[in-house]
Amino acid sequence: MNIPQSVIWEKGAIQLLDQRKLPHVTEYVTLDTVPAVFDAIQSLAVRGAPAIGIAAAFGVALSAMSHPTGDIDELKEQVLIDSGYLSQSRPTAVNLFWALNRMNDAVTRAVTADELRESVVAEALAIQKEDEDVCRSIGEHALPLFKDGDRVMTICNAGSIATAKYGTALAPFFLSKERGLQLSVFACETRPVFQGARLTTWELMQAGVDVTLITDSMAAHTMKTKNITAVITGADRVAANGDSANKIGTFGLAVLAKSFGIPFYIAAPLSTFDLDTPNGDAIPIEERNPAEITEVNGMRIAPEGIAVFNPAFDVAPADLITGIITEKGIVKPNEQAIAKLFA
Amino acid sequence: MNIPQSVIWEKGAIQLLDQRKLPHVTEYVTLDTVPAVFDAIQSLAVRGAPAIGIAAAFGVALSAMSHPTGDIDELKEQVLIDSGYLSQSRPTAVNLFWALNRMNDAVTRAVTADELRESVVAEALAIQKEDEDVCRSIGEHALPLFKDGDRVMTICNAGSIATAKYGTALAPFFLSKERGLQLSVFACETRPVFQGARLTTWELMQAGVDVTLITDSMAAHTMKTKNITAVITGADRVAANGDSANKIGTFGLAVLAKSFGIPFYIAAPLSTFDLDTPNGDAIPIEERNPAEITEVNGMRIAPEGIAVFNPAFDVAPADLITGIITEKGIVKPNEQAIAKLFA
Repeated sequence: MNIPQSVIWEKGAIQLLDQRKLPHVTEYVTLDTVPAVFDAIQSLAVRGAPAIGIAAAFGVALSAMSHPTGDIDELKEQVLIDSGYLSQSRPTAVNLFWALNRMNDAVTRAVTADELRESVVAEALAIQKEDEDVCRSIGEHALPLFKDGDRVMTICNAGSIATAKYGTALAPFFLSKERGLQLSVFACETRPVFQGARLTTWELMQAGVDVTLITDSMAAHTMKTKNITAVITGADRVAANGDSANKIGTFGLAVLAKSFGIPFYIAAPLSTFDLDTPNGDAIPIEERNPAEITEVNGMRIAPEGIAVFNPAFDVAPADLITGIITEKGIVKPNEQAIAKLFA
Repeated sequence: MNIPQSVIWEKGAIQLLDQRKLPHVTEYVTLDTVPAVFDAIQSLAVRGAPAIGIAAAFGVALSAMSHPTGDIDELKEQVLIDSGYLSQSRPTAVNLFWALNRMNDAVTRAVTADELRESVVAEALAIQKEDEDVCRSIGEHALPLFKDGDRVMTICNAGSIATAKYGTALAPFFLSKERGLQLSVFACETRPVFQGARLTTWELMQAGVDVTLITDSMAAHTMKTKNITAVITGADRVAANGDSANKIGTFGLAVLAKSFGIPFYIAAPLSTFDLDTPNGDAIPIEERNPAEITEVNGMRIAPEGIAVFNPAFDVAPADLITGIITEKGIVKPNEQAIAKLFA
């Protein structure tokens, strides 16, 4: 089975899946310099918080290899400068800073230049491996929620190419395929940026998972007429009470699922939980460029001068969430259960 | 105030708004032959069931004017042949057949060639005027449902350019503008064909009505954060029990509105009711070309070979509908009330 990965470390360089060209062209580009990694992150060739962090981590490894000095202090200084540079490639990406901080610690710990060059590669590989393990664990915990023949709806791309491997919301579908369980996925196209139409469809097709594309507006009719048995989505942030922010459209799916009596699951690693955010009302919702809505592929579809409301995320409130699937198991969306998970 | 109309009879010819070019270009083309009317209907230059019927009716008038014969029997035969030809321009358009049948009756009734040429123009103008009156009445009945400052959501284009004038779901917004009432409209873009983004936005902007464009996936978040006070949509068919088929996405809006405690209205003329259809389950749902979803403006957005589900309509069940606004007043969506309306 082919489970696509966006970042592959091979022969001392990054093989990066250019996600901008999907689904039309599957192209891996070789990144062997720090500026190439910076550009790839900034230009969205790589997307998905964990995948960005992993790409940046390997960027630090490339930095260490590119500076020929044998002086450990000089090497540390040069690599930390490159790391700081990489941190500016996507200023709002929390995973990017987290991964670079972890790489900086590995750099700082090194005693010799050779050791530094070895340890940063090992650390980047460890970050990648840990993310893959987390995703696979989420898939393992999710899998018993589905039975053979189930039809599951999702939105956006909480998928393998957004992480090290497997993804979060899509992880159970790859595992089900490994185990011979037949699950059908209905992928909402995910306006305005079409991550569902472009990426989720492509990635599930690569692995031979049965997937059908619908527009977001078809969710209610599809739940009813195709007997959807569950909805599963990723999350960008889970608040202390279980309210979960995710791609715009998720809130609507949660309301519909409740109305149809269909379980609605969030799949998210513990790193997505923010216990300092008490509830969904405290999560700021980014509003993005109106052109995302008024133009498709650079061609205008709406009148010049039209007012646009373009929130990038919405919040599925805890009372609409059946369970949050983490690498440590399924947690009920309430303050006590979540606090216990982190205790 | 500029309330756009799609069909205008002027100096013995049709001035037709080319809806294919909206919202970028506002262009009226002159149709002065029957084949030109046929082509305009077939190529979707005119859309919206009532507007198609009106265009075809004036097509019959053009037919009568184009045949120079003074022989009434010969003229009747020629005009009825043209009418039959026009009826093949959109084979599934019920309003088209209804308008042409009415025109055929006027043709058949005429005693002299001159009388026939006069009466078909008069009949086409009457069809147009009656539709305008119906739409205006729907608007009048809808208006008391809204108060100054209300924020109302709609989907697709149940608008002026789909009818003679005013439209159905959009009629109250034009009337509110005439009366100085401030209503804000949130227009769902209406994937896959973008009638909301392309047409509803344009038409309301022409009249100076406050309108904001959102993607269909933003409906839930917008209802909550923008304090939407009502949802109003058109209908393609209302069943005897009040279940209402309309553009795909309508069902989801009805579920969301219920969940938020927001009234959900259908605006539809009596001609849209089908008392022979007992309920929504008996309404066939057309599935359309997958390319509507996988391509935008001819550019592909989804992988080759992806399975697609593309239902064109869905059904808002009667129990989610607060009221159906007709030219005879607002009817409760139940069998007794609807039967009484037609008694």
